[in-house]
Amino acid sequence: MAKEQPVSHTEAHEACGRTDGDKIVRKSHHSAEFKNSLTSRLNRIEGQIRGIKGLIEKDTYCDDVLNQIAAVQSALNGVGKLLLEGHMKSCVIERMQAGEPEVIDELLVTVKKLIR
Amino acid sequence: MAKEQPVSHTEAHEACGRTDGDKIVRKSHHSAEFKNSLTSRLNRIEGQIRGIKGLIEKDTYCDDVLNQIAAVQSALNGVGKLLLEGHMKSCVIERMQAGEPEVIDELLVTVKKLIR
Amino acid sequence: MAKEQPVSHTEAHEACGRTDGDKIVRKSHHSAEFKNSLTSRLNRIEGQIRGIKGLIEKDTYCDDVLNQIAAVQSALNGVGKLLLEGHMKSCVIERMQAGEPEVIDELLVTVKKLIR
Amino acid sequence: MAKEQPVSHTEAHEACGRTDGDKIVRKSHHSAEFKNSLTSRLNRIEGQIRGIKGLIEKDTYCDDVLNQIAAVQSALNGVGKLLLEGHMKSCVIERMQAGEPEVIDELLVTVKKLIR
Repeated sequence: MAKEQPVSHTEAHEACGRTDGDKIVRKSHHSAEFKNSLTSRLNRIEGQIRGIKGLIEKDTYCDDVLNQIAAVQSALNGVGKLLLEGHMKSCVIERMQAGEPEVIDELLVTVKKLIR
Repeated sequence: MAKEQPVSHTEAHEACGRTDGDKIVRKSHHSAEFKNSLTSRLNRIEGQIRGIKGLIEKDTYCDDVLNQIAAVQSALNGVGKLLLEGHMKSCVIERMQAGEPEVIDELLVTVKKLIR
Repeated sequence: MAKEQPVSHTEAHEACGRTDGDKIVRKSHHSAEFKNSLTSRLNRIEGQIRGIKGLIEKDTYCDDVLNQIAAVQSALNGVGKLLLEGHMKSCVIERMQAGEPEVIDELLVTVKKLIR
Repeated sequence: MAKEQPVSHTEAHEACGRTDGDKIVRKSHHSAEFKNSLTSRLNRIEGQIRGIKGLIEKDTYCDDVLNQIAAVQSALNGVGKLLLEGHMKSCVIERMQAGEPEVIDELLVTVKKLIR
């Protein structure tokens, strides 16, 4: 699996909130580079899932299939950590600086879901 | 996510080893029903991965994307547990009964990768 | 296990930084109530660990011991989530409001260790 | 943390079942060496838990406490894996060889609790 690159603050996002008329629409504006990195990881994961379906179709020994599943879980964790890093280093900081501490409550809910 | 169904011994596999000439080729012979269940779960997961790529493309707020990633991890865990159950209730038992205790060593390696 | 109580902002901490002469010493000033809750959970966990040692001494069947270990892991997760919640709802918010965004980098390092 | 040593089959256990009159009492008969290894790991974990209580008492910065908690979780995982290995390499094999395939069902329940 490709090593996770740290996310630079400016590279990751441009803004985390936008008004659509009177309505606030939360948005993440990732840099093209960051998006490409996430997308190519997800493409690889999608390929792994398809590969696992093929293994099952061909009656591959379960042990080998389970090892592939562990590999996908690890790759997916990588995407999750990268996104979390991008989110914390941009939206969380920006919304805190814009006087919206509720971003921390939202972050807490998300982090609790990711914690083992 | 669909609730995991317990795997009946006979339904899951028919045999766990097969000779290909002189060479032993390990195989899992899942029942068509068990394979279909795994495949449809994996299809759903593949769709979720594609959905996450779309969310990133559309600059969806990271928190929402992270929640989707947590959902995929949970679905993938479900597949892993189902496969492990199928494996233990068929190949592990059969190979032990055929006097091949090394199946336990292999299982241990796999289980350690799945343990948090 | 006792249900986790949400942590109110004021109850959890009073301050997150303190100067000791010229040196900045990071401190968490938990409320007595919050400390008591953490301490009694940790006392219970300590008792569980001692219990597991007793089980091993008495040659208790491994399966039963492993179930106890899974229970301690779950209780320890509860303490971790509670502490993380207390930390994010007080120190992280306070230090961000005091213009110290590096608290987010520290938090990220910690959260990555806790993520499965 | 001390590196996990593989468990040799004979070292870990001597027997996994014993009759107490007419009643079958499941027992694990660990070798003295294996028991000592588990006990000293658990003693270290107990000390770490006491250490964490002290950190909370002294208002140590939460981030540092959370790092300690992650360390205990990892140490506890080590004990779990060691016990699982001892269990699988002795009781599971022995009971399978004694014609008790239900040991696999019990193992499956336990492993599912330990899987992330």
